[in-house]
Amino acid sequence: MASVLLTFSLRHNLRLVASGCRYVSKTAPKTLSEFEYDAPSMKTPVPGPKSQELKKQLGEIQNVGAINFFCNYEESRGNYLVDADGNRMLDLYTQISSVPIGYNHPALMKAVTNPNNLSAFVNRPALGILPPENFPEKLIETLLSVAPSGMTRLQTMACGSCSNENAFKSMFIWYRNKERGASGPSPEEMSSCMINQAPGCPDLSILSFMGGFHGRTLGCLATTHSKVIHKLDIPSLDWPIAPFPRLQYPLEEFARENSQEEARCLEEVEDLIVKWRQKGKPVAGVVVEPIQAEGGDNHASSDFFIKLRNIARKHGCAFHADEVQTGGGATGKFWAHEHWGTDDPADIVSFSKKMLSGGYYHTDELQPDKGYRIFNTWMGDPSKNLFLSEVLNIIRRENLLEEVTRSGKALLQGLYELQTQYPHLLSRARGQGTFCAIDARDDVTRDNLLLKTRDKGVLLGGCGERSIRFRPALVFKEHHAHQFLNIFNDVLAEYK
Amino acid sequence: MASVLLTFSLRHNLRLVASGCRYVSKTAPKTLSEFEYDAPSMKTPVPGPKSQELKKQLGEIQNVGAINFFCNYEESRGNYLVDADGNRMLDLYTQISSVPIGYNHPALMKAVTNPNNLSAFVNRPALGILPPENFPEKLIETLLSVAPSGMTRLQTMACGSCSNENAFKSMFIWYRNKERGASGPSPEEMSSCMINQAPGCPDLSILSFMGGFHGRTLGCLATTHSKVIHKLDIPSLDWPIAPFPRLQYPLEEFARENSQEEARCLEEVEDLIVKWRQKGKPVAGVVVEPIQAEGGDNHASSDFFIKLRNIARKHGCAFHADEVQTGGGATGKFWAHEHWGTDDPADIVSFSKKMLSGGYYHTDELQPDKGYRIFNTWMGDPSKNLFLSEVLNIIRRENLLEEVTRSGKALLQGLYELQTQYPHLLSRARGQGTFCAIDARDDVTRDNLLLKTRDKGVLLGGCGERSIRFRPALVFKEHHAHQFLNIFNDVLAEYK
Repeated sequence: MASVLLTFSLRHNLRLVASGCRYVSKTAPKTLSEFEYDAPSMKTPVPGPKSQELKKQLGEIQNVGAINFFCNYEESRGNYLVDADGNRMLDLYTQISSVPIGYNHPALMKAVTNPNNLSAFVNRPALGILPPENFPEKLIETLLSVAPSGMTRLQTMACGSCSNENAFKSMFIWYRNKERGASGPSPEEMSSCMINQAPGCPDLSILSFMGGFHGRTLGCLATTHSKVIHKLDIPSLDWPIAPFPRLQYPLEEFARENSQEEARCLEEVEDLIVKWRQKGKPVAGVVVEPIQAEGGDNHASSDFFIKLRNIARKHGCAFHADEVQTGGGATGKFWAHEHWGTDDPADIVSFSKKMLSGGYYHTDELQPDKGYRIFNTWMGDPSKNLFLSEVLNIIRRENLLEEVTRSGKALLQGLYELQTQYPHLLSRARGQGTFCAIDARDDVTRDNLLLKTRDKGVLLGGCGERSIRFRPALVFKEHHAHQFLNIFNDVLAEYK
Repeated sequence: MASVLLTFSLRHNLRLVASGCRYVSKTAPKTLSEFEYDAPSMKTPVPGPKSQELKKQLGEIQNVGAINFFCNYEESRGNYLVDADGNRMLDLYTQISSVPIGYNHPALMKAVTNPNNLSAFVNRPALGILPPENFPEKLIETLLSVAPSGMTRLQTMACGSCSNENAFKSMFIWYRNKERGASGPSPEEMSSCMINQAPGCPDLSILSFMGGFHGRTLGCLATTHSKVIHKLDIPSLDWPIAPFPRLQYPLEEFARENSQEEARCLEEVEDLIVKWRQKGKPVAGVVVEPIQAEGGDNHASSDFFIKLRNIARKHGCAFHADEVQTGGGATGKFWAHEHWGTDDPADIVSFSKKMLSGGYYHTDELQPDKGYRIFNTWMGDPSKNLFLSEVLNIIRRENLLEEVTRSGKALLQGLYELQTQYPHLLSRARGQGTFCAIDARDDVTRDNLLLKTRDKGVLLGGCGERSIRFRPALVFKEHHAHQFLNIFNDVLAEYK
């Protein structure tokens, strides 16, 4: 029933594109044109013979079950990824959403060859004990210049998993310090923690959502619930898992139904917090993605997130927005939570991927009380922050957030049109900025569409059970959206 | 009683150095002399005024409780670290043992400026799906060229914690696949794992040792038992913890006592494996450091490790040697486990630090059966492997393992002499290569000695309750050892 309604409403609202009709781009001149390619160029099916040979070689060293193909990064430019067989693809997946301004951006090339930066590449410091003298200044200039509202504090980390693991630890430490008040830890806490036992290792929990993804190390994995392959055979923790709203798209056309669904989930969140407290495993923090990415690009309204944040606060739990995939501009705002329109979005916001290394921002309150509580050898990598500095400059100079909004609109508009045209194949087009997705009929169709589109020169990723996710770089323009849509249209038209 | 014996035997066996006497280096010409400094040069106490000012600034952004001082990495050279106040220190801590060939090594500088390497710095791939075409070749040339005996398989990771987390996951997957045999996971396993419950998330455990350190993410932290500050307030898992032998040093003088102590610990290991199996939390793997580092530089004999490996095998547990701190040459062999003299040292060997990024080697058997089971966005960083390639070249060309053995002997010999001379302050000198340590009378004395030595121009680290650990780079020569020993001798002579 829902899909009939959906199809109807789309047909009603949107222009249709005939199968043969081509988009002609009327956008501004390409700012990347000096070094970018014009279009995909395919020489072999993907993976080609060279990739297959390399896969065999790598297979002697490690499991290659997830390898797509091998890349020639030297020859890749901007939005185009070149593979080992000379195939050139428009890249809408960008290394699992981790390339902010395309391949071999001249500004990044310049950063490596700048003699002033040499030392940062060659001498990796243990940031927690012996930071470089420019560290505070560089943090202010880069990461803090894009700090989420209400957050002046920042911990750098090397990757997304470490960011979330340490964000969780900060929430546990904060929670126990709050319970403890002025008194320090008891002798019993100090001795029991050394053998993994309560009260020193308390039975605290993090509430997460079904379909959420927060990483794959053991702490993160206990809050990840997107796919069996991530979790099977790995011991875990008995932490509460709430349902994430399953909304109908386009969101604005199902406001009432979606709002009911969100209310149901929020009620469940509150029940779980109470239940886990009664079980003796109080919820120290709630972690959520502004858009569930790996789990299938599941959206929720600003109202949902604001209410969720309030429920967390009401029950004394910290609120952690995981922006590892959503952060860095792809939704058209620098952080996806900015769409919520609140000055006080969260207690912790974690990041990685497009930010080029990991970390998390937090409010003053979440600051650990002592050194060495949140700590590891490297705690980030200043050489990645040099690149981030250039990325932020480019984002500002080239108004990339506006560009993302514009190209994202073109992309989503095209997806709406395609699902109207191929209702037996596609549904549930959705997105913010270029952070878009659409569902295929089933997982087999999705996987086939991904392969066929790749062979025609566009690299896409899957997510959830049967979704296709679009994760282009921030330098993805309207004409790239049209290029993709034309190719995808051809694939769909030919699809049996 | 032990310390009386120790003092006696040392006085008996070793030359004494009078307080005023100086070492004069008779070693070969310094290969680093072209770019290295000659000696420490101190202008202010440490931290100096500039470091103190920067610490105040950084304190506005994050907890600075662990910050020692701020560094001028541009001006640092070889074994000498220069701080923000222009103090130049001989560095025997090397960013928590993570700098392989000193600061600003010309070979590493050259690697950054080599145009062929540009792309590897600028384009960080998602190695698990889209590796660069030279990836297999580079792995063979670098990491696999130093693979531990019996291990042809390798998984790269970004840091030590991720390496150990994923090594643990590999052991869990291997263990369950072994139990399962030919049949795939049951529907019940697949559904229960999504909500963190058995049988899909099985109650398996990793056996670790008291005093061990394997990282600080939640899985790693459940096997880390070195200090309260690491573990307090963080939820954990009920995994078995065995006693690590507390040996008497020098090892060769207490062979009988030490062997008894090791037998006691091994017996306990076997008891714990049986007990945890009966508890329904079978031990899938045993993890151990060849020398417990963070926990206080605790050594054990080759015999201990070989027997431990056999106990693990006998009970169907994987055996994981964590070489994050011991690996990369500092013990005078590339891997510390090579000192065990066995062709079959372990099922998994993890690394990071001096290897410049993380990962683990493993036997064929430990290979996960499917893609995406061991996975994350970056899975390492090829740009760090470029540096590793240069590091390995330098190690080979300059025979650095032999140099480490030679300078380590000078260092340990000097420590023996100093503890003989200052028996009220120092004891238990021990080490392999330059991976040495000595104990102070108590923690306050240790901390004071570290600060006083630093103010005279030598940077050292602590570990365990009252140990000083020595972790120089592989380019640390005999004359550097003598330089340190002279300064340390002065500090001890003045110590009230």
